[in-house]
Order: sequence, then structure tokens, then C-alpha cells
Amino acid sequence: MNANSPTEPEQGFVVGIDFGTLSGRAVVVRVSDGEELGSAVHEYSHGVIETSLPGSGVRLGPNWALQSPTDWIDVLRRAVPKALAVSGVDPADVIGIGTDFTACTVLPTLADGTPLCELDDLAARPHSWPKLWKHHAAQPHADLINEVARQRNEPWLGRYGGKISSEWEFAKGLQLLQEDPEIYARTERWIEAADWIIWQLSGTESRNVCTAGYKGIRTEHGYPSREYLTALDPAFGDFTDKLAKELLPLGASAGRLTEQAAEWTGLPAGIAVAAGNVDAHVTAAAADATRPGQLVAIMGTSTCHVMSSDHLAEVPGMCGVVDGGIIDGLWGYEAGQSAVGDIFGWFVDNCVPPAYVAEAERRGVSVHTYLEELAGQQPVGAHGLVALDWHNGNRSVLVDHDLSAVIVGQTLATRPEDTYRALIEATAFGTRRIVEAFEETGVAVEEFIVAGGLLKNRLLMQIYSDVLRRPISVVSSEQGPALGSAIHAAVAAGTYPEVPTAAASMGRRIESAYRPDPGRADSYDRLYAEYRQLHDWFAGEAYGGNGVLHRLHKLRNEVIG
Amino acid sequence: MNANSPTEPEQGFVVGIDFGTLSGRAVVVRVSDGEELGSAVHEYSHGVIETSLPGSGVRLGPNWALQSPTDWIDVLRRAVPKALAVSGVDPADVIGIGTDFTACTVLPTLADGTPLCELDDLAARPHSWPKLWKHHAAQPHADLINEVARQRNEPWLGRYGGKISSEWEFAKGLQLLQEDPEIYARTERWIEAADWIIWQLSGTESRNVCTAGYKGIRTEHGYPSREYLTALDPAFGDFTDKLAKELLPLGASAGRLTEQAAEWTGLPAGIAVAAGNVDAHVTAAAADATRPGQLVAIMGTSTCHVMSSDHLAEVPGMCGVVDGGIIDGLWGYEAGQSAVGDIFGWFVDNCVPPAYVAEAERRGVSVHTYLEELAGQQPVGAHGLVALDWHNGNRSVLVDHDLSAVIVGQTLATRPEDTYRALIEATAFGTRRIVEAFEETGVAVEEFIVAGGLLKNRLLMQIYSDVLRRPISVVSSEQGPALGSAIHAAVAAGTYPEVPTAAASMGRRIESAYRPDPGRADSYDRLYAEYRQLHDWFAGEAYGGNGVLHRLHKLRNEVIG
Repeated sequence: MNANSPTEPEQGFVVGIDFGTLSGRAVVVRVSDGEELGSAVHEYSHGVIETSLPGSGVRLGPNWALQSPTDWIDVLRRAVPKALAVSGVDPADVIGIGTDFTACTVLPTLADGTPLCELDDLAARPHSWPKLWKHHAAQPHADLINEVARQRNEPWLGRYGGKISSEWEFAKGLQLLQEDPEIYARTERWIEAADWIIWQLSGTESRNVCTAGYKGIRTEHGYPSREYLTALDPAFGDFTDKLAKELLPLGASAGRLTEQAAEWTGLPAGIAVAAGNVDAHVTAAAADATRPGQLVAIMGTSTCHVMSSDHLAEVPGMCGVVDGGIIDGLWGYEAGQSAVGDIFGWFVDNCVPPAYVAEAERRGVSVHTYLEELAGQQPVGAHGLVALDWHNGNRSVLVDHDLSAVIVGQTLATRPEDTYRALIEATAFGTRRIVEAFEETGVAVEEFIVAGGLLKNRLLMQIYSDVLRRPISVVSSEQGPALGSAIHAAVAAGTYPEVPTAAASMGRRIESAYRPDPGRADSYDRLYAEYRQLHDWFAGEAYGGNGVLHRLHKLRNEVIG
Repeated sequence: MNANSPTEPEQGFVVGIDFGTLSGRAVVVRVSDGEELGSAVHEYSHGVIETSLPGSGVRLGPNWALQSPTDWIDVLRRAVPKALAVSGVDPADVIGIGTDFTACTVLPTLADGTPLCELDDLAARPHSWPKLWKHHAAQPHADLINEVARQRNEPWLGRYGGKISSEWEFAKGLQLLQEDPEIYARTERWIEAADWIIWQLSGTESRNVCTAGYKGIRTEHGYPSREYLTALDPAFGDFTDKLAKELLPLGASAGRLTEQAAEWTGLPAGIAVAAGNVDAHVTAAAADATRPGQLVAIMGTSTCHVMSSDHLAEVPGMCGVVDGGIIDGLWGYEAGQSAVGDIFGWFVDNCVPPAYVAEAERRGVSVHTYLEELAGQQPVGAHGLVALDWHNGNRSVLVDHDLSAVIVGQTLATRPEDTYRALIEATAFGTRRIVEAFEETGVAVEEFIVAGGLLKNRLLMQIYSDVLRRPISVVSSEQGPALGSAIHAAVAAGTYPEVPTAAASMGRRIESAYRPDPGRADSYDRLYAEYRQLHDWFAGEAYGGNGVLHRLHKLRNEVIG
């Protein structure tokens, strides 16, 4: 075989699959160098189930969001064979498969892994279905979880920035118990989709350290105690029995591909199946950013920051700090900004006048692009504005979803591109606050790396570099998570001894793709000082702030409640 | 003659003329009851002269705004005869004429009243022309006036809220001296257009107490001292010689209509000509709101508040407090909000998306009306917002044009009508702050009366009533200032002994046209408490505020300077 052939087997090939919110993407990758040889996407036929259940048509309550396990299996059946075909790779040369998933997306199953929603007598009951990460109907249950934890001074609370999210395993599980106790009783396993898909591929139940740590309140001391669970609800004391399993480190083999899964995917039975993983966290491997201090920001509608460190600290406002949560042997930190691209989308949809929309159309560009062109022409500070990027609350570092946005400095001369630029800058200031929170608690940030959809906005990237006063590296792969999963598959298959080694060969990024301009950075230091003052004044009372945003939120809830 | 005839002479008729920014309006009014029998408008052919001089084409600098005296004479020649014709009144039955003008609109003339811009050798020099109220090129001169006054602790400064405006007589006069000393030297009289037009009607120079007090720094102690003027500029010491004259109280007769003016207007020579007056101040008479504590808010692009009181106090942020400045024998207070309708106009032009504009068009209403309909459907506080109405700085009570706006509480769910409503509320809160400033210094506000273009916005009027927790009376006449001038003409003609008596017969308003709803007022008390906190925090350092708005303004000036 020709040594230059792109399908030259040498160390063989791996398949990575990224299970997203609306679709799943498979990619076929060469183990030796990470070259992506083919990929395919399968859109879920049920998408996000928000109004009524498939089949029965039973209506769902507000803030519900479910998914169908059949859609996930369809990704294995459709996207994997298609990606293989596109790549030209002989399936016999594939040596492993890895996956990543949205999280916390969680479902109730029987002891054999059968989803309860697939049982005829339960299919018409909403609580039998998988709850998607953005199912937000468990807020009262999360509130109780946090209140009782604070009262009891539970030691794990600090690991999660002092707040457990309504999106996570315990809140969704407590909602299941309290709203449909019969289904709770029949739930033999309460499992992340990230782990459930591995069960379907390998035939064996396993749990991975990442989702258990970030979404399942699992620390080196185990799960929350039975006493605590009983304090939440006397019937909740057995909850962790539905979870408890040995945890697999990331990159470990979870087993071998079953005959059934081989039939679905067209891959050889018996190849390695990597432990489950999460979309954001697996991107660190795709970026070859696995060393302590390499922060990867996955920037899209919101931003997720992941970084490993060799020591443990309680950084304010973290989503979680987990031993081996990103890379085995290091502490994995996760932080977040609850709206980024969503803010710009809201502005374009709600705050841009017809003349701008018409001019963008005339030029054949998006409104975003047109605003970016206009906003890029002005010197830093010329718009006279500074904003707080709290349009969807503040995840890090204040962990407060009841906060809202502030914009300061508008005049009769303020134009849409001025405000648009100020909003971009506000999200950059929010990122700088997070980086500073890491460094203030002794967790060094050595390199700032960006992945995700906002990479294509060059003005935004340059603003981030100027605001952070740091070079910014970028992840060039358009399928970062799937590549990251493939890297984990190569480790599970034994080609590489550990993820960092595999990432060094297979992952890639463009270092210092953007560099800060000292003059602009000086002006941004002045604007950031204003942002910090506003940030601290508008923060909640718990942080010594004024509390006005909470009072506005309270009045709003009173009058529209 | 039939007693029921609308043109029944009895006490006769008067003509009032309102000289605005773009046009002049004449109205013919019955003296016995104020009935408006006919009116006509003449648009100025030169409008506002902002880019180049008529005739010579000489270019003007930034922020210049001039007018042509011929346009004003054309109002006498066109609008008055037309109004008379429409009214059906026999000109022989007209017994007096009164006028009001924008202010401070000021011009240099010869000793006989000839405008310098009408001299052949000076017509091509910008400084020979009348400077309109909104000529804003004298800011450096105003800055010097204020700085020297503070240093010397001039006693009159407190009467003007601690700040002399760049729009007023002294700033514009100092600009004239320093930029074109030759024209300054040839300026024998420096006169408000309000007084110049009276000179043209009566053939005699006079000065009225209102413009002298509010725009000419004339108090009961006279004008600023020669020492002070010399400290501004050694050549400025004679400035007040170009002003000094006995002052006429409002409603006084300034003389008799000349043959020339009779020819222009079609009115009988020899009828009474009332002393000059100002558009906002004369509206108090039109509203029959001449008693102490009756505050009249003239609401349009900006808002001007005028109110008489029987005692003198230094209310923070007044535009001026003048003895007899509105009604002879009472202290006249003037306050202001530097942008009101302008804020809503800015929002509609810059911040409303195409779908809203299209829907308004489909319904055949303005975007303002459509937003008002949507905003009117929500309970108080439902939008979760509070804003500071400082898009054009803050006149009263902070007297700070370098302030800018703030909006607090936006989320991804905030819609245009939410922000629109919050901006209306912000201007209402600004008004409440002014009313409270009066009352805190012992100047009672007994009745709140609205005139002007914003009257037609019923949602806005109801919000003001709810925010102020007061009934609101409205001025029903659509030509309030012209009616007010006619009332002053009736006093000058001797039909009534004083303006309040004339206003009681001829002026009118609808009392308590809007009444506050207690529930909404309670919610607004809560929102106003937030406004006050933000107001005080965002105020300049001089008021113990944070200073962020000044720092943003400074950075902006540095980078775009």
C-alpha cells in the first residue's frame, strides 16, 4: 500500500461521534496525525421535544425539554456508515470509537438499559423520557437542593461555585420523584445519555468521571450522603443507588463493540469503545490543549471554559472542579458565561432598524457582518458605552441567574453599531473577569484558546485579544468535539498511552492567531475598570452589591406571576 | 349686531403671535372669553441656517444655528392678515397685539434697531446674524463664564442652578467679541429677538423682564459687574451697555403699533403692543395657570417647566428664578429636561426592528402609536427595567450636559415595547425628581399642568399621573403660546388690569384630565426608589456620584478628538 495514501492504515483509524442538541456528527480520523478523512451529520427526527410527547401527544409543562433515544441510535445507524463511505477508509482498519454528548442529558432505564419511555405502559408519561440539558422545569427542586445543602453546610457545595444547577442529575431526579413517584420507583438506573450510548455500543453499563463529577455531584469523597438526600425528601435516600458504579477515567476503554452495534455502524465488532465524555470537555483534546493552564473557551450561543490544573482551589463561580474531569490526573475546571452569541442574536432580532437590515441585504451580508464592519471602524471608547453582559444572568463568577443586563452611556447620537460593539466588549470583559478569578486564586491561565461558532467573527476575536491583553489561539477544526472523541478512541484502543500524548499527535490549533494591540489594550484597561465597578455595584447583596437587579426581578415576578 | 355672533366686538379682539424655531403662528382671539377665531402659520423661508449664510454662501462652523430677521417680518406680513381673514373679524375691532419668541435668540443691531446682517458690508460675516437659541458654538465661552463666576463667587450664579448656559446672551456675546471683535465693536445693541420684534411693531426699543432675567443674568441687583466682565475679557467690560434699558413687566404696553407695522399686518395703527415674552412662559397664561404652585410643563422634544411662587428659594438645577419672570409680582421658576420626545424619537429611529415598522404600517399607525399600544398592555414593572433619561444630559436638577443614559434590567426576553415604556417612565421619573426638588426647598407644587405635543400620547400622560401620584391637567388649545400672547395683548390694551385676571377669562385647561391609579402608583413608588438610587450613583462626582459617565465622556473625547 502506498505510504502517501490518505487511507494508509499504519496505526489505523478511529471514529468520533459528537451528539449535539439537534443532530449527531460522526468523523473518521487517522490515528497517526488526526487527519479528518470524512464526516457526516444526522439530524434528530424528533429534535427537542418541548410541547407534546411523540406518539401519545401528551402535553408537556412549561420549560420542559426532552429527547428520544431512538434519535441517538439513528446517528449510529446513519451518520457513521455515511462518514465511513465519504472517507474512503476500509471499516476493517478502524480500531476504536469514541463519543461525546450534551450534558446533563439524563434518562431513567431498567437494569438492562432499556429506556422507560420505550415501555408500552410508560411511553405516554413525560417523566419516562430523557430530559435534555436545557430542561428547566426542575428549578424548585434545585432551589431545595441548594437551600438544604447550605443549611447543612455540605462540603461539596463549594466545588460547584456554591450552587447546583436545575439542569443537573440531582435536580432532574428529585423532580422525577416528586412529580411521578411511580416512575421513580421503576427507575432502576438513572444515567447520563453520555454513558447510556456507551452501554448501547459496548453492551456494558459504565459511568465516566466527567459527567459524574460535573453533573452528578461526585467528588473524591463519593456522592452526597444518604442523610442529606433524606433531608431533601424521605423517599430520595436511595437515589444514588440508581447511579453508583465504578467510574471510568476519560480515555479508558469501556468495553468492545457489540455485534448489534457493529451491525448499526458498519464497524468491526470487538473494537475499543472509549468511556463517555462531554462535548465541551473533549474539545481540549481536539485543540491539543491538555496541559495545566491551557484554557479552552467554546464560544457559541453561550461560552463554556474548560481548563486543567495541577492543583485544587475553590475559584469563585465555577460550574465545577473535578478530579480528572478533563484530563486524567489533573483537576478539571469548568466555568461559563450564560449568554454570548445569544446576546448578539437578541440585539440583531430586536434592536436593529429597517435601514440597517436593508443595507445588509443590499450588500449580501448578514446583519451581524454589516454591524461588525461598521463597529470595526471606530477607535476603542469612541462610542462612550460600557455594558454588563448579564442578559441571561451571570454564571461565572457570580452564579446568579436573576441578574440582568445594564448599558451605560447612550445618547441621542448612539447608533446601532455602537451598542453592538459595546455588547461584544461586555462579553469580553466577562471573560476577563473569569480569567482574573482563576489567577486571583492561584490557578494560572497560560494560554487562551477559542473554539466554536463565534470564531468566524474576526472583530470579536480581536476585541477579546485586546481586552484580555493576551494572544488568542484558535481551534481550526470545524468539528472540534468529534475530533476530540476520536482522540479518546485512539487512547482507548491503546495506540497512545494517554490523552495528552494522543492530542499532541492528533489535535491541533493555530497559536497566537490574534495578538493584542498595546494602545487598544490600554483603552480597554480603562473601560474594564468601569466594567468592574459596575459589575460589583450591580452584583447581588451577597457580594456587597446594590441589589437593584434582584428587586426589579422580584417586582416583575410579582406582577406577571 | 347679533349678540351671539362669534365676531361680536363687545370688548374687541386681540392678535397673538408665536415665533417658533421653524415658523410663526398668528391667532385672532376674542377678549371677552379667549375664543380662538382664526389662525395662520408662516414657515420661515430660511428656516434654521446651519451650514452656510444666505446670499454669500459663507460656510458656518460646527454647532452654529442662525436665523434671518426677514423671516420674522414675513410672519407679520403673511400670517397676521391670513389669520384675520380666516377669523372673519373686522381688523378695526382689534385692540392689541402680543408676541412670544424662542429664547435666547439674540442679534446685534445698530442704535436704530437695524440688524447688522442687513448691512451690505457685514452680510457675509456669520457673527452679524441672529443666533438662534440652539446655536451651541459658544460652549468654551460659557465654560469661561462659569469658571470665573465660581472663582469670584458671583452671587447670581445660584439663581441659575450654578451654571450659565452656552445658549444665553452672555456666552453668545463673548463668542462674538472673541471671534469677530470688529462686529462686536459695531454692535450698538445686543437684543433678544423677543424684544427686537416689539421694536419693529412699536418703533421703540424696550426690554422685557423675562428674557432679561432668564437669559441675560439680570437680577434685582442689576447685571453682572464690570469687574466680572473685565475678568472674562478686558474688552468685554462694556457688554452690558449694549443691553441696559429699563425693563418692562410682562403684560405691560411697550408702545403703539406704527404705521409701518400696520401696513405689514393689516391691523390699525396705534393699537397696544405688549412687551416681549417667551414661548414657554407665556403658556402659563394660556392655561390659566398663573397662581403660585401651578406648574406648567411644556412637553415636546424637550420639556420646560414654568411655575410662579410667592417666595424666593434656590431650588437645585433651576434654569433660572426671576422676579416677575412669568407673572408680575411673583417669583418665576424655570426648570427643564433636556430630552423627552427626542428620546422616543431616537429609539424609534435607531432601535426598532423591521417587523415592528412593517406591522405599524400595516395598521396604518405610526411606530410610536404601535409601540404605545403594545406597551400599554403590560402591568407596571412587568418589563423588569428602569432607565435614566439622560440621553442629552441632565438639565434639572443636576445641570450636567456630559451625563448620558443608563438602562438596567434587559434580558434576552426584552422586547422593543418594554424598552419604549421604560424610556417613557424614565422621563416621568425625571419630572418627579424636579417636582420633589421644588417641594424639598419649600416651593409647593399645587397643580401639574401639561401643554405641548406629547399631550397626544395618552399612555405617556397616564404614566406621568401614576408616577407623580397627582392628577394632571391639560391645556386644550393647540396654539397655547399664541393664545398666551393674545392674553398679554389684552392686558397691554387695558381691558384687564393684570395677566391673572385676563387668564381667568381667556385661558383654559381641563383639570384632572388624568388621575393616578393607586395600585400603579404603588408599583411606581418602588421603581422610582430604584431610579433615585441610580440617579444618585450615576450623578457626577460633585454630587457624590461615581463619575463613570464623566470618565466615559472623557475617553470618548480623547479618542474622537
